[in-house]
Amino acid sequence: MATIESVLEKLDANRDAALQRLFALIGIKSVSTDPAYAVDCAKAAEWMAAQLRDIGFNADVRPTTGHPMVVGHAKATNRDAPHLLFYGHYDVQPVDPLDLWESDPFGAKIVDAPTGKQIFGRGAADDKGQLMTFIEACRAWRDCGGLPCDVTVLLEGEEETGSPSLPAFLAANKKELSADLMLVCDTGMWDRTTPAITTMLRGLVLEEVTIRAADRDLHSGLYGGAAINPIRVLAGIIADLHDSKGRVTLPGFYDDVADLPEDVAEQWRNLDFDEHAFLGDVGLSVPAGEADRSVLEQIWSRPTCDVNGVFGGYTLKGSKTVLPAEATAKFSFRLVSKQKPEEIANAFREFVRARLPEDCRAEFVSHGASPALQLPFGSETLSRARRALQAEWGKEPVMAASGGSIPIVGAFKRDLKMDALMVGFGLDDDRVHSPNEKYELSSFQKGARSWARILAALAA
Amino acid sequence: MATIESVLEKLDANRDAALQRLFALIGIKSVSTDPAYAVDCAKAAEWMAAQLRDIGFNADVRPTTGHPMVVGHAKATNRDAPHLLFYGHYDVQPVDPLDLWESDPFGAKIVDAPTGKQIFGRGAADDKGQLMTFIEACRAWRDCGGLPCDVTVLLEGEEETGSPSLPAFLAANKKELSADLMLVCDTGMWDRTTPAITTMLRGLVLEEVTIRAADRDLHSGLYGGAAINPIRVLAGIIADLHDSKGRVTLPGFYDDVADLPEDVAEQWRNLDFDEHAFLGDVGLSVPAGEADRSVLEQIWSRPTCDVNGVFGGYTLKGSKTVLPAEATAKFSFRLVSKQKPEEIANAFREFVRARLPEDCRAEFVSHGASPALQLPFGSETLSRARRALQAEWGKEPVMAASGGSIPIVGAFKRDLKMDALMVGFGLDDDRVHSPNEKYELSSFQKGARSWARILAALAA
Repeated sequence: MATIESVLEKLDANRDAALQRLFALIGIKSVSTDPAYAVDCAKAAEWMAAQLRDIGFNADVRPTTGHPMVVGHAKATNRDAPHLLFYGHYDVQPVDPLDLWESDPFGAKIVDAPTGKQIFGRGAADDKGQLMTFIEACRAWRDCGGLPCDVTVLLEGEEETGSPSLPAFLAANKKELSADLMLVCDTGMWDRTTPAITTMLRGLVLEEVTIRAADRDLHSGLYGGAAINPIRVLAGIIADLHDSKGRVTLPGFYDDVADLPEDVAEQWRNLDFDEHAFLGDVGLSVPAGEADRSVLEQIWSRPTCDVNGVFGGYTLKGSKTVLPAEATAKFSFRLVSKQKPEEIANAFREFVRARLPEDCRAEFVSHGASPALQLPFGSETLSRARRALQAEWGKEPVMAASGGSIPIVGAFKRDLKMDALMVGFGLDDDRVHSPNEKYELSSFQKGARSWARILAALAA
Repeated sequence: MATIESVLEKLDANRDAALQRLFALIGIKSVSTDPAYAVDCAKAAEWMAAQLRDIGFNADVRPTTGHPMVVGHAKATNRDAPHLLFYGHYDVQPVDPLDLWESDPFGAKIVDAPTGKQIFGRGAADDKGQLMTFIEACRAWRDCGGLPCDVTVLLEGEEETGSPSLPAFLAANKKELSADLMLVCDTGMWDRTTPAITTMLRGLVLEEVTIRAADRDLHSGLYGGAAINPIRVLAGIIADLHDSKGRVTLPGFYDDVADLPEDVAEQWRNLDFDEHAFLGDVGLSVPAGEADRSVLEQIWSRPTCDVNGVFGGYTLKGSKTVLPAEATAKFSFRLVSKQKPEEIANAFREFVRARLPEDCRAEFVSHGASPALQLPFGSETLSRARRALQAEWGKEPVMAASGGSIPIVGAFKRDLKMDALMVGFGLDDDRVHSPNEKYELSSFQKGARSWARILAALAA
């Protein structure tokens, strides 16, 4: 087994080539939610499989009813090495509104910012840049003689749409994908120089509802006043979903929500989290969630309900005096602790049905559901990862939580009983899911070094 | 001056040619609200001017800052004939959602229905078919020797977008457009065999509001719970605009609304209006307006507020876990009696501003405003028109009201002090503004005969 020093030297020597590989991956338009990009998603999967084969993995692309999976296996040089499963996703969010991007979202490049160099492009951070930190660490170990742990890599192309194909794939390949520990690189650092390990993830329920009234669009002059307007009905439902103190009003919504253990709450209170700067960064000044919770609690450990999109009637330029036949809204619920996705989805549907006036019907579509996840504190795995990160960054990593979901982590915990070590190098200002997404060049380079160290630490 | 009998014979003899002319007009895609169809609007204006010149009018196309006007003048054969101004509009509503049309909206054709033949296509009724009834009546008079009245024709191309260019055009051409009486053919019959004269029109205020919050779209996982969601704010405003009894809650909204005179209310109560059938025709069963008003009052003589369109966040297929930066809604207010458009628009804007939480801003766009209009009962003009319609249809015409707006009628009343005689031949099931718009062939043919008779009656 090579020394960690030689592996780190190898990474530093090959930085430019690593960047070119990431640029090539960002250039593939793997937008998973829009069927128009299905071919690009397949292309990204093939590209990833080729990468893995190039560094000695036995890797291939596996079809699903949606976008394909990539699976690769590589053996360690030593016999009793632990077996790790790395998970990442090669799909990205849509780029609309396109006119807000400063340049081509798929034309990756280096941008000079006051705080340092940045990698620009859709997926630069989420998750192409992040997952490539791990792949580059594996490449460096391989170039120095071989991996210190058995490694299985699983990359999916549907993370941004709720991972619909994952449960079946997991069930069908349970044995092949089982390992001692799962590694994920899809989370963030505490700040530009302080690493973090994410020990809690919020779950996610995605629901879409369409309210229908008349059997056609009507003239608002001829029918206005007499015919029910489904936009008004939908608006009433959206408005009812929160009370005046920012709490979600679904019956039973908070029943399975446990409060934070006091020691974690204490650690969070001592973090130098600047609520004002956090909101100010995006042009806001006042926390809009539950009135009696800190912003850090609101985004890390409290459940939420948001409308992600709404549409109905005439939405183009100008006016049209139409009384529309239907209106649609897309909702996401973020879940914590033991909230059950099915129960929340059902409570939402009941809530809507209870508010339908006569002549209105509701149709529901589920876009996915996954529970929240908490990793036990104080495990040996966590201690080794902390020491590895401390060595790279010179600072104790923060035991963080994340408001965003990584559905697969919950699925693996549920179905394969595997814990996940979540270490990522994103920053709050990476603009993931927004125009002008970026990833710090230092995150990419020191991220790869961090994974090289973690592999060594877990193998020891 | 020719006899009315010879003019009616001429109309009957030339029915096929008249239909071909209407088909040609429907074939021009003059959708006024969408800038992509500006060239088609100009083409429709040129086509109309050529029509008018073909039947002896001195006619031309006049540019505006929006779509052009068509103005034509023709003199009567007799000296002391009254001077009439006919108003119509050559623009049509958008055709979306296109997939609900049974065939090309701009490919006009005759369709056999159980109740008789129908003319199919966008604008078949509103207003291309309707305005051509008057033009064909003029053509027949001309073919029989000349018009019995001085006639000015004014056709605009912005009626469906609130007639933004009209006030300035009216002011600039006040003398040229002034006449003894205005004629409009943009309203409906009481039923398939009973004509109607529309004596009341609701006014219209068109307002669009965009609520903005964060300076970019956010990830609902990273910011959900802490960042204000503008869709939720907009939904609250929409929900607040009506109380539980269906009344609009804008302060002062009903201050200038007079109740119907008892004799008109009595006439309406005696009409065989079938609320159940009216709503049932479009798949509804329960009146949704003010709880203490009949449906006929709700749509003819009560003010309303409707959302015509709403959009914000992710609106394509699938899901996107975005917390959007903005959300927009388009509203139409229908006004009655002495409600003032400016006051209603201002009350709406105040209402929105009063409900903006911190960190939210509202931007407003007006898409037009016009007051309601009431024509005095018992005038000589009205008596003559009633007799002419009675002669053609064999039934006393209904003194009706209309829930839809014709902004120009209000503008002419306000600026030129002209009353308007509104006679139209549309039916409630014409699907104006909706997919599969149609116009009864009998409306087109007997409508032209009705105008021929009205011209004779007014000249007598």
